[in-house]
Amino acid sequence: MRAARGEDALTARIASAVKRPGILLPAVRGGLHVRVGIGDDAAVINLPAQRYVLTTDTLVEEIDFLPRETPYWIGRRAAAANLSDVAAMGAAPLGYLLSLGISRKKDARFARRIVEGVISKMAPFRAELWGGDLSRAPSIFVTMFVIGKAERPILRSGARPGDRLFVTGSPGAAAAALESRRPRVGRAPSPREKPYLDPEPRVEFARALSRRRWATAMIDVSDGLAKDAHRLAAASGVRLALHAVSPGALTAASDDFELLFASPASRKDSILALGRQLGTPVAEIGRVERGRGVVLTGGSRRVRVMDQGYDHFA
Amino acid sequence: MRAARGEDALTARIASAVKRPGILLPAVRGGLHVRVGIGDDAAVINLPAQRYVLTTDTLVEEIDFLPRETPYWIGRRAAAANLSDVAAMGAAPLGYLLSLGISRKKDARFARRIVEGVISKMAPFRAELWGGDLSRAPSIFVTMFVIGKAERPILRSGARPGDRLFVTGSPGAAAAALESRRPRVGRAPSPREKPYLDPEPRVEFARALSRRRWATAMIDVSDGLAKDAHRLAAASGVRLALHAVSPGALTAASDDFELLFASPASRKDSILALGRQLGTPVAEIGRVERGRGVVLTGGSRRVRVMDQGYDHFA
Repeated sequence: MRAARGEDALTARIASAVKRPGILLPAVRGGLHVRVGIGDDAAVINLPAQRYVLTTDTLVEEIDFLPRETPYWIGRRAAAANLSDVAAMGAAPLGYLLSLGISRKKDARFARRIVEGVISKMAPFRAELWGGDLSRAPSIFVTMFVIGKAERPILRSGARPGDRLFVTGSPGAAAAALESRRPRVGRAPSPREKPYLDPEPRVEFARALSRRRWATAMIDVSDGLAKDAHRLAAASGVRLALHAVSPGALTAASDDFELLFASPASRKDSILALGRQLGTPVAEIGRVERGRGVVLTGGSRRVRVMDQGYDHFA
Repeated sequence: MRAARGEDALTARIASAVKRPGILLPAVRGGLHVRVGIGDDAAVINLPAQRYVLTTDTLVEEIDFLPRETPYWIGRRAAAANLSDVAAMGAAPLGYLLSLGISRKKDARFARRIVEGVISKMAPFRAELWGGDLSRAPSIFVTMFVIGKAERPILRSGARPGDRLFVTGSPGAAAAALESRRPRVGRAPSPREKPYLDPEPRVEFARALSRRRWATAMIDVSDGLAKDAHRLAAASGVRLALHAVSPGALTAASDDFELLFASPASRKDSILALGRQLGTPVAEIGRVERGRGVVLTGGSRRVRVMDQGYDHFA
């Protein structure tokens, strides 16, 4: 009898981790029925008729995380990035597939620790790992594909003149946290590194906005506040006038995974109360006007904000 | 007025290519309703209640395709790999997300040509591009996530002693085609390079097997016939006794995207006739026995076949 080895052995270990009580839920819940999970050519899932969101996000070594980063935290960060896209639609994650590229310097344990990081970050949302793919690659990458449920998706395109603009958390904080992490990469994380290493996607807060129909447009801040504000403005055909934003927070090209959203002015107090209730920091940072682009306002001055931030293909 | 540029411009061009008549179908068809496609934080899709297959496969430069390969053919090969996983379940592809990692040496046009290759390979199956992700990366990779429809999924685990074994096409041909391609990489493909560069996934044939319930177990040959035969044997708890297979075809560690499947002996003539009808080469190559592992038979001799082939983590 020969022990299983290599890729199949790793897949088997991941499959058994997924089945371990406390890590993930039983395969059958809430109308979803996983017929075949990890280990066949594809997963087989019974899905009820409804509206779904589908999203994918990839983290690449040296681009989205530091070289020599701890695999568990690479996994958590990858999961946060994908959860943030689901949150930005006001949706709830249901299940996901995971594709890993692992460089030759790293062993199977390294891959398994990434998977454990991903699972640990997805589990509180009851999102299940349905399958994936493992590859050797010149450098490390983590790609996730998430399916979520969205009764009332919040698009980028619904902001209207007169709406107020809000942001969760502190956009720009991830850039500062990354600088804290840089000299300490690979070590146990310190609290100040959290916005970079283990950001908190705003799933619950966004779901509450969606259920209450309080947001007219929403986007997650993944390439810097300036760039994503421009994206929301362009999709909605409006101008965003920002105040109470420091130029530093605006121009930091960082993956914050915070939410930028627009709401009718009448909802302002309710939104701030909702943030307090759910423990989600939220602040009003501007308003929606007729026009195009993004401006920074202060007293009587208005400064045009360039469409800048992180761009993979600039 | 400033022209859009970089990542957003590329996304916009891909979105408009997807909408171009003749490339893809209108957004509404067959009960599927694409509410939001490319360009928001996630795609929003209405799905009817049924059984779905979900699969992901990644192609990595230097591992799954040659360095300096033409982007259009990288895209077609990536699509073929994913379609082959869908075919191996007896399913039909419906839609997909695409995640690209593009090295700094390559421009946006390179990324767009990969996308065009993917779309051209998926379009005959009426599978729609629903969204994706573009990243800079140290080396090129293409990850796809495909959702398909599977009324009667064919698993790896259903083979029974007495069943016959069949294979489509010529496993091992991709390895020879790769060697033909090597000195000609980046040039227009020659017909002999097709099994490597533009393999034909057996979607239609596998769908027909699924509809007729003629296959008891199926797997696609993506890591060499020996390795995938072992996987099918292990999943079904049986031994596969192969004849009419050359040792070369057995041990070539190549991504052939052909199908290995088991069927009741009574279906043999019908299966061969189906292959002729659909233009899919199919041959009987052995039978299923009690036991475990894989053996090669010839006359009275039986040789044990090692569990070898391509393994990312051996």
